[in-house]
This record gives sequence, structure tokens and C-alpha cells, in this order.
Amino acid sequence: MLAYIKDLYAGLKGPTEALEGKEVTVRGLVKSNRDNKTVGFLWVSDSSCFDAIQVVYDPAKFSDVQKLRLGASVEATGTLALTPNMKQPFEIHLTKAVVTGQVADDYPLQKKKTSFEFLRTLPHLRERTNTFNAVFRVRSELSYAIHEYFHEHGFFYVHTPILTGNDAEGAGQTFQVVADPKDPKEYFGKVATLTVSGQLHVEPFALTYQKVYTFGPTFRAEKSNTQRHAAEFWMIEPEIAFADIDDDMDLMEDFLKTVVRRVVERCPQDFKFFETWISKDVATRLDHMLNKPFQRVDYSEGIAILKDAVAKGHKFDNPDIYWGLDLMSEHERYLTEQHFKGPIFLKNYPKEIKAFYMKQNPDGKTVAAVDLLFPDVGELCGGSQREEDYGKLLKRMEELHMNIPAYQWYLDTRRFGGCVHSGFGLGFDRLLMYITGLDNIRDVQPYPRTYKDMAF
Amino acid sequence: MLAYIKDLYAGLKGPTEALEGKEVTVRGLVKSNRDNKTVGFLWVSDSSCFDAIQVVYDPAKFSDVQKLRLGASVEATGTLALTPNMKQPFEIHLTKAVVTGQVADDYPLQKKKTSFEFLRTLPHLRERTNTFNAVFRVRSELSYAIHEYFHEHGFFYVHTPILTGNDAEGAGQTFQVVADPKDPKEYFGKVATLTVSGQLHVEPFALTYQKVYTFGPTFRAEKSNTQRHAAEFWMIEPEIAFADIDDDMDLMEDFLKTVVRRVVERCPQDFKFFETWISKDVATRLDHMLNKPFQRVDYSEGIAILKDAVAKGHKFDNPDIYWGLDLMSEHERYLTEQHFKGPIFLKNYPKEIKAFYMKQNPDGKTVAAVDLLFPDVGELCGGSQREEDYGKLLKRMEELHMNIPAYQWYLDTRRFGGCVHSGFGLGFDRLLMYITGLDNIRDVQPYPRTYKDMAF
Repeated sequence: MLAYIKDLYAGLKGPTEALEGKEVTVRGLVKSNRDNKTVGFLWVSDSSCFDAIQVVYDPAKFSDVQKLRLGASVEATGTLALTPNMKQPFEIHLTKAVVTGQVADDYPLQKKKTSFEFLRTLPHLRERTNTFNAVFRVRSELSYAIHEYFHEHGFFYVHTPILTGNDAEGAGQTFQVVADPKDPKEYFGKVATLTVSGQLHVEPFALTYQKVYTFGPTFRAEKSNTQRHAAEFWMIEPEIAFADIDDDMDLMEDFLKTVVRRVVERCPQDFKFFETWISKDVATRLDHMLNKPFQRVDYSEGIAILKDAVAKGHKFDNPDIYWGLDLMSEHERYLTEQHFKGPIFLKNYPKEIKAFYMKQNPDGKTVAAVDLLFPDVGELCGGSQREEDYGKLLKRMEELHMNIPAYQWYLDTRRFGGCVHSGFGLGFDRLLMYITGLDNIRDVQPYPRTYKDMAF
Repeated sequence: MLAYIKDLYAGLKGPTEALEGKEVTVRGLVKSNRDNKTVGFLWVSDSSCFDAIQVVYDPAKFSDVQKLRLGASVEATGTLALTPNMKQPFEIHLTKAVVTGQVADDYPLQKKKTSFEFLRTLPHLRERTNTFNAVFRVRSELSYAIHEYFHEHGFFYVHTPILTGNDAEGAGQTFQVVADPKDPKEYFGKVATLTVSGQLHVEPFALTYQKVYTFGPTFRAEKSNTQRHAAEFWMIEPEIAFADIDDDMDLMEDFLKTVVRRVVERCPQDFKFFETWISKDVATRLDHMLNKPFQRVDYSEGIAILKDAVAKGHKFDNPDIYWGLDLMSEHERYLTEQHFKGPIFLKNYPKEIKAFYMKQNPDGKTVAAVDLLFPDVGELCGGSQREEDYGKLLKRMEELHMNIPAYQWYLDTRRFGGCVHSGFGLGFDRLLMYITGLDNIRDVQPYPRTYKDMAF
């Protein structure tokens, strides 16, 4: 029978034991191959899980197997043997092998340690190395856990458009999309850009379906070459009706704890690898995510704490703390790492530093915005209650000199049976960086696209 | 307690009965409201399922409810009453109402029958009408069923890039992406286009993870204004290693039957609506999909059948049938509707009319390509076994004068432990059109983008 290595590990206390002495077939890529004259050891990975399987063979009988090199593709059949006293819990004793794909001499992934930077030039091959094999498996599991969570909780998935005539926040550089560079507006009859957020387009669906989300690619044409910015990245944007900022925070916390817990449970070997080889912080990060309550703190309280810290002698690079300040990373880190010692929701920000669509609080100064801040990394996601009052929303858009006619459809949702509603945006790739410990966004995306860099 | 209407219907033989006489709260949009002097009937939809709920009220006591018009947003609390002898199985007797959002006089969705064409100008509102409310609910359920199927079957989800330097098939017009229209190549250092297919980028992942898929937006800049073409649409592209064209057909058939069956089971009220109000063909189409085996027919056999039909007097608009012909819709329909009376896999096409990456058969003339053809609509998806032989693939690419250096990475996957592998591409929106009976792609996409048409 054909077996996936994941199933063999998962069934160790059950079906796998029953396979002892039975014939199984595994398929995959050669991870290593060595032999002495009497016995050979071939490690095969099928990427169904992190761990590979050892295939034991007789070099005299399987000379073609003896010649297999790292990266070759093989189908190996043999009897399963339980080896409870060895490092690996089971192995296969080879009876038949088919070499399904040889590997050329210039195969660039050799046993020697290669840098992540070098591997970024090989997006078609690096997923065969331990690190990237684990990362993209976890990426897939995390994606699924997200869809699963929303489906279980009655959310509808909305494919908001990638091509758009509206720019969600006005912020961030956008890419233009043209069919004919000589006549950019010809195809759509107007300037088309790549979406920077699905929020504005998903809001009307929330007012109808009550619980909706988008999960798809978004784009920023920023010319910054940081470890955390990419031109193309995936965003998760839930939007909920009959829900205020407290409901929004409840959702963020339950959502994050649930999906991360599931992925950790489903990929135990991968997380063991990340903790051991990528970052010692992974265990702490997961503990913060899974076991710490996300404390809820007003922006004004945050400012008071920071002022107090300065007064007590804490040295910030930017020590000028005042109400209205757009907090910098060092300030956020002080709050999460030094003061609250865990994740916090910082909420009710000055309206001047937040987006036009956010709910204006009765104080006339703040909006019902919230950022979720984590020790170590800072902001992981941000959300807000939305301004559902037509007059207030229009006034704010006018203050900001926005193009009102272009947004009339959005404004109209406030006149046609709107209600209190909220939502948030979460950068999928950054969440993946957080839980894997990888610190460069290029290392969690299959084919990263950044300024001046797009390998095929 | 807060109740979703879907749960009340789903629990009719269980928990819902236990709620009789208990207080429940529903939230949603007003579908209709009428009253005589003594009793009022307010229908509220929360879009959790197709059906709404009737809220019965006393107009003298609830004058604000009496004034509610179509499209207003409301939160209604009352006692649940089972009404087994009425058309609807239960209703709510109102005790408390909160008007959560009024509706302005110029609300464009009035009771009178409106055309789909008019509704396309209102993508932020049309999902409140019966048809679109059902369509986008089913769109979400179908998306989830797809992720669910692949996850259950051990597939990994790969986010292939939207921005690309490679164009999958050379076919189809592509959109260019520029940060600065005055210097189109500046941002990435080369021409960047929007992907037309994730296949080439997902193949390397299949060679590693064995079972993978993409599911994301793809783009074509064709200037055709048909009912079946959009500039932006979602594609599903699974890719499987150690799998030939027969395995590929097995996957297509099992995949389609499984996901469609689940959606039909999960959205029974919606499919009843589609059958009754959108197209009488829906029942037949679902029967073809779910209950008919997909017969497997060689292209050469198909040509022989068509020649025979012409000989027997069948009149085609294009009666010149010869081996090598790229079949037209009328030919495909003859095969499925007249001859086989059901869906067919047509396979092993002449290599000249198929893509460069397809497996060249030993006959030297054909490739292991397959199209899945359905009565009524024609091709629903297409796939192929991929050419895994480096020399043959290179020779074919040279014959077609392709830019070999740009594809060297792709070619290399044939030198570095490649294996027999296959895959297919399925247009998600077209599948949704097929099962809902809607015949315009603009009516199954939340915000359709087509030539000369992009409403915000």
C-alpha cells in the first residue's frame, strides 16, 4: 500500500503498529544516502510532514539505489519494521525501488550550509530544504485554519476585487494596471490600481451577511527594502455587523488564539524545528499568543505610562512623548515588553493619526481604532469600529479633501440600512513570520516580490 | 438569545422546537413589512440562509416598526412560536425592537422587478436581492468546500504570485503592472504582468509536496465582451506528482462531484431557488455533475464520431471535420449532448493545438491533454500530464521559439529529481455559473471587472 509519512507518524500507536512486517510504498525525494558494504541507509521525504523515513537496503542487490544522490526522486517499497529502540520509531526494509527522477550534477542544494539569501534566488527549489519545507507546510495549514475558523463561525468569504478604481486609505503607494502602456485608461475607461485593502468593498457585504471576511493578495508599491515589506502580500480582513470595537477585539483574540493553536497542534515537528533552529523566541511568542490575555489599554493611558517612564529615567531615542504622537516601535515595545509584559490592544487613538472611516468617539478627539501590539514585533493587526453615521463620515471625508463622488457608493451604505459594524486587517505573512520566527518576509512567501526583486 | 435564521431552520426537529415560547433575538434587513390595524408582519433576513423569518407585531404598540421600510436594519426580540400549519414553520412574536439603521427614500432596490443589468451598477447593494443573496452565499460555500476537499486529501495550498515575470502559456493578453507609468520597468527592474495561471509556479511545489493547489485571482486583458469572460476571475489549479493523466481525470471527477455535492447539501434553499427562478436546467446540470460518470474519450474517437455525424447528415455551421481541428462549441456540444448524453473527458489532443508543457505521447502526434466537456456549457476545465523529460520539453519550447533563458528555472525542475506529474485548471466563476444557472459571469462575481466596465 502507498503510505504518506505523516500518516505513519500519526498512527504510531495504532494503524502503523499493525503494518509491522507488511509491505508499504513511500515516494519522495532523497534527503541523504550512505552505505557500507553490507547495508545502505536511504532517507526519503515526501513533505507530508517534517520528518523523513529511513529505507534500509542491501547495496549489493540495489546498486541503482546506492547511486541515488540528494534530491533524486524515488519510489521505495519494502516491509515496515518498528524500531522503538532507535532514534526513528520505524523504518522500511527495501524490496523494490523505482528511480522516478535523477538529479543532475549541478543540483544547487548540497549538504553544505547555504544562506537564506542564496536560497531566495531558488524559489523553485528551496522548499526542499528543512526550513522552507516547514515554512510552506505551515503556511498552508495556517491558511486552512483561517478558512476553517471563519466557516465554523458563520462567516461568508467574499472575493473582493484585486483591480480597483478606489484606493482604500489613500495611504501607501499603489501599482497601476494597464492593458496598453501607451493608453493606460483605455481598457477600463479609468485608472485601475491593485488593491491595498478589501475593506471598503467588503463592508457592504457585512451589512448584508453580517459576518464576512476577505483573504487574498494585496499590494503596495512602496520603494522600501525592509525585512517586513513586500510588494505583494496576503491579507485577512473580517468585517462584522452589529458589532462594536469590543466585539472586534473579542474576535481578533479568539481568532488568533484558535488558528495558531490549531496549526501548532497539526504541525508539531515543524514547530519543534522552528524553536530549535530558527529562533529561541518561538516558544515565548507562542506562549504570548496562546496563553496570555490580550490586555486592553487606552491610547491615552499608554501615553501616560510612557511619560511616566521618561520621568523615571527611561531613555527613548524619541523621548518627546505627547498626546497625539504616532507611537514608534520603541514606544510600543516599552508598553508590551516592559510595562504590560504581554500582548496589548491599544485603542481609542487620536483621530488625526487614523483613517477617515473610523468611528468618531463622543469625546470629539479620538476614534474607536485598535492596534494589537506584541512584544518583540510590534503591531500584528489593526482594526476599528466604522463610522456608521452618514453626516459624520461625510464631514470627515470633506475635512480630508477626499474625492467624495468616487466614494458616494461607500457613503450610501450608511443611508441604506447600515448598522454599527467593525473589522480588522491582519497581514497573513507577518503572522506567519511571528509564529515561525523567520524575520524576513521574503522567507515566508513562495515567490516574494519586493522592490527591485522579482525572480521569475 | 441571539439566533441566526439558518440555525433555526436547521434545528427544526431539535433545538428549535425546544425554543418554543422562549425569547429569541434576530438581526437583519427588512424584506417586507405590512400590517392591518390589528397585526403587523415584518420579514427579516439575516442572510445566514436564503429564507427570512416572520416577525409578528402589534402596530399600535410598535409604531416605529410599522414605519420600517424595505432595506432598513433592525434588531427584533420576541417569543418563538412554532407554526406547523403555516407556510413558514415558525415565527417570532415581537416584544422589543431596535431600529439599527433607517433607509433613505431613494433606496434603489424597490419591490418592483429589476433587471440584472441594472443591478450590476449596484454591486454594493444587489447582494440584498434574492438572486444575488443566494449567489454570493453559494460562492462562499463553494470556496470553502474546495479548500476543505484539498485539505482532507492531503494537498498543500500554495500562494503562487499574482505579479510575475513569466507568462504561463504565452496565450491571452496580459495586464502590465507599473509603479510609475513614466518608467514601467523601474520598480521590479523588468516588465511585470498580472498572472494568467499559477501552474508554472506551482509545479515545483508539486514535485516537493506531491499534492498541491493554488486558488486565487488570475487576469486576462482580452478585449472581448462576452457573458463568459472577465478581466479578473478566480482559478483553482491542483498539481499532483507521481500522477499521470488517468490520475488527473480521477482527481477532477472526484473533486467536482464532492465539492458540488457538499454545496448543494449545505445550501438547499438556495438551489431550490435557482431551479425555480433562475434556470430549469439547474436540476439537469446537477444530475450530470453528481450522478453521471464522466466518460473518457480520445480526441481521435471524437473526430471519428463527428465525421460520422456529418456523413449521416448532421448540419454543423463548421462542417469541415478533420484530425487536427480545434473543436468548436457546436462540435463539443454534439459529442456531449447528442452522442454521449453526459459529461465527457476528451483527451490526447494533437500537440499543435495544445500548450508546450504537455506530455508528448509515444505516437509523436498527440499530447496527454484533457478537457472536461459538459452538455449545455462546453469546457468546464482542462488539464494535462506534464512533460517531465528535459530533452523533449526543451525541444518543444525551441520549436515554439520560446524565450528559453526566462524559463530555465522551469526546465531545471526536470533535471533535479522531477517525476511524472499532472494537473488541471478550473475557472471558479464558471463552475459557479454552471451550478447556479446564471449565464453571465458578471452576476457571480462580487465586483466584476470587464472590458470598459469597472464600477468602483
